[in-house]
Amino acid sequence: MAKRIAGSTPALDGYRMPGEFEEQEKIWMIWPERPDNWRDGAKPAQEAFAAVAKAIREFEPITVLASSAQYMNCREQLPENIQVLEISNNDAWVRDCGPSFLVNDKGGLRACDWTFNAWGGLVDGLYFPWDQDDMVARKICELEQVDSYRTDNFVLEGGSFHVDGEGTVLTTEMCLLSEGRNPHMTKEQIEEKLCAYLNCQKVLWVKDGIDPDETNGHIDDVACFIRPGEAACIYTEDEMSPFYQASQEAYRDMCEMVDAKGRKLKVHKLCCPKEMVTISGDFRIDRVEGTLPREDGDICIASYMNFLIVNGGVIVPQYGDENDALALEQIQEMFPERKVVGVFTREIVYGGGNIHCITQQQPKV
Amino acid sequence: MAKRIAGSTPALDGYRMPGEFEEQEKIWMIWPERPDNWRDGAKPAQEAFAAVAKAIREFEPITVLASSAQYMNCREQLPENIQVLEISNNDAWVRDCGPSFLVNDKGGLRACDWTFNAWGGLVDGLYFPWDQDDMVARKICELEQVDSYRTDNFVLEGGSFHVDGEGTVLTTEMCLLSEGRNPHMTKEQIEEKLCAYLNCQKVLWVKDGIDPDETNGHIDDVACFIRPGEAACIYTEDEMSPFYQASQEAYRDMCEMVDAKGRKLKVHKLCCPKEMVTISGDFRIDRVEGTLPREDGDICIASYMNFLIVNGGVIVPQYGDENDALALEQIQEMFPERKVVGVFTREIVYGGGNIHCITQQQPKV
Repeated sequence: MAKRIAGSTPALDGYRMPGEFEEQEKIWMIWPERPDNWRDGAKPAQEAFAAVAKAIREFEPITVLASSAQYMNCREQLPENIQVLEISNNDAWVRDCGPSFLVNDKGGLRACDWTFNAWGGLVDGLYFPWDQDDMVARKICELEQVDSYRTDNFVLEGGSFHVDGEGTVLTTEMCLLSEGRNPHMTKEQIEEKLCAYLNCQKVLWVKDGIDPDETNGHIDDVACFIRPGEAACIYTEDEMSPFYQASQEAYRDMCEMVDAKGRKLKVHKLCCPKEMVTISGDFRIDRVEGTLPREDGDICIASYMNFLIVNGGVIVPQYGDENDALALEQIQEMFPERKVVGVFTREIVYGGGNIHCITQQQPKV
Repeated sequence: MAKRIAGSTPALDGYRMPGEFEEQEKIWMIWPERPDNWRDGAKPAQEAFAAVAKAIREFEPITVLASSAQYMNCREQLPENIQVLEISNNDAWVRDCGPSFLVNDKGGLRACDWTFNAWGGLVDGLYFPWDQDDMVARKICELEQVDSYRTDNFVLEGGSFHVDGEGTVLTTEMCLLSEGRNPHMTKEQIEEKLCAYLNCQKVLWVKDGIDPDETNGHIDDVACFIRPGEAACIYTEDEMSPFYQASQEAYRDMCEMVDAKGRKLKVHKLCCPKEMVTISGDFRIDRVEGTLPREDGDICIASYMNFLIVNGGVIVPQYGDENDALALEQIQEMFPERKVVGVFTREIVYGGGNIHCITQQQPKV
């Protein structure tokens, strides 16, 4: 039974969103496909997604969702211990279109099914239409037979916020106050909605993300909670970096933040790649009206922060950059109890995101 | 983990197909949609399918699979206690394109994934293409994480045979020896294949079914096992009935049959509808090349035999015919321990099948 809960909120019903570092049941992914976003018919991206899925499968179960057209190819590209199910989609960002799972203290599992509008709808969204993406959360809840809260009239993506599982939300003004999402709501109303649906008491606002043109500055390229009371934040002293200003400000501001439990955040620095990852040369994508054009020299949002925490592990993007090893070291220091695994994901960054953007965790109950 | 088992058979591995009357875990259905088969955009058929699904749900869980295009409509037409999942399909006959589940005596569950060619492929199949149907069994096995035997080069539909769960298969020559299925195989080779994959020792052959033009005479409109050693068979003494000859012959022959355990079959008679169900008047279907035309006066295959056995119940077709009540009575006498429920399914018969054709049981382990 997968009910659509109306007339209540998770906070009222005693459900909260757990931190990503809490124990997980499984991970969800969507298989990439659209040839106007992923170069060369998405074949290089599919290889990278498969590598991410296999890395995750070393730690816990994973289900990869594929369209009808790609079902057989996806099934054949992945090992048998990875479940492959059919789902229609507009692209592969299950972090953003998937459900945000909730738990209570009696073993209950529910989910938030946010309204999804492709990161800005008709204002500055990245593609049209997004109708299939917007049904992904509901379909996952139906697969798992999980009751869900459909937050009509509240546009949100899973990658635009992090929670510490103990009452605190971390997000960016750049994204949540953007014109393309909830322009009818004040900042206070947005805080209320976040707190009601994630069962939190405090929202911590970072000003800017590092990708104003794509997700309007999702927090998951900038910072995250690594456990209650502790966060990680990207940090670079390279003034030539396009991420310099946003990362400096985010780090400075986060060091002053106090969470819902009254703890001053301990903030760990995470390096940025030394070299910019850019679109260049042989970048063959279909030319389709309405999708984001890619031009030679376009800067890709290559952040080590877009890692995924799994049971006993952390899956971290690698770019073939001089700082790859340093990033792994820094993340290993943050998570001494977990095995840190790097996966080469340059092809995913070309498509506009990374490991965290293409995954969604389902907590264990 | 859903493996594709190669180089072995269920018989070798100790798996058998249980009788439909054995305990079930759940029922699978596919939501009807194609407007060149179901009249009026499939809306009347969808109502009938929903009625069948709800009737089944009174006895056990059920999952209804719907295409992307029909997902939301299907989800909204059915109550929340019926699971709705996405699957591509060419039509709604999960009995024929779905898996035949197998069990062993250690709690194992596997399945046969027969090659499906739309009841005769390019020889006399009912539509083209059938590629999505042919993947349904695999996708269901992937959903349930069940290992399966893919019987390449052996075309078979779930509705073309019945098993008693104790070593006996019941089928028709009209279907299994048809030109559009396995013309490269002798009758003996087909028997061997059936026995190897269903783990049976004896095949009982009824000569003809009652729908030579559609399924080439599936057994599930003619006869079935109601428990080991006992079968039901349609029976009419109305010489004007188009089913007269086939039913008389089937009944006569079955009364002489001896099963794999050496038991002479006890055969129960089941009446036929008094009036013919025919295509007439306002039958608006899309005109598409390659699909079966429907013409005024076409006889529909309205058989009470196309019932489904569920846990504690039997779901029986009703046509608004004078014999509806008699059929329920006769079936109730066959199954004194089960609740017999009639569902009005004239609209399903218009599409070429009935309750048994649109359902597939998954045994309990």
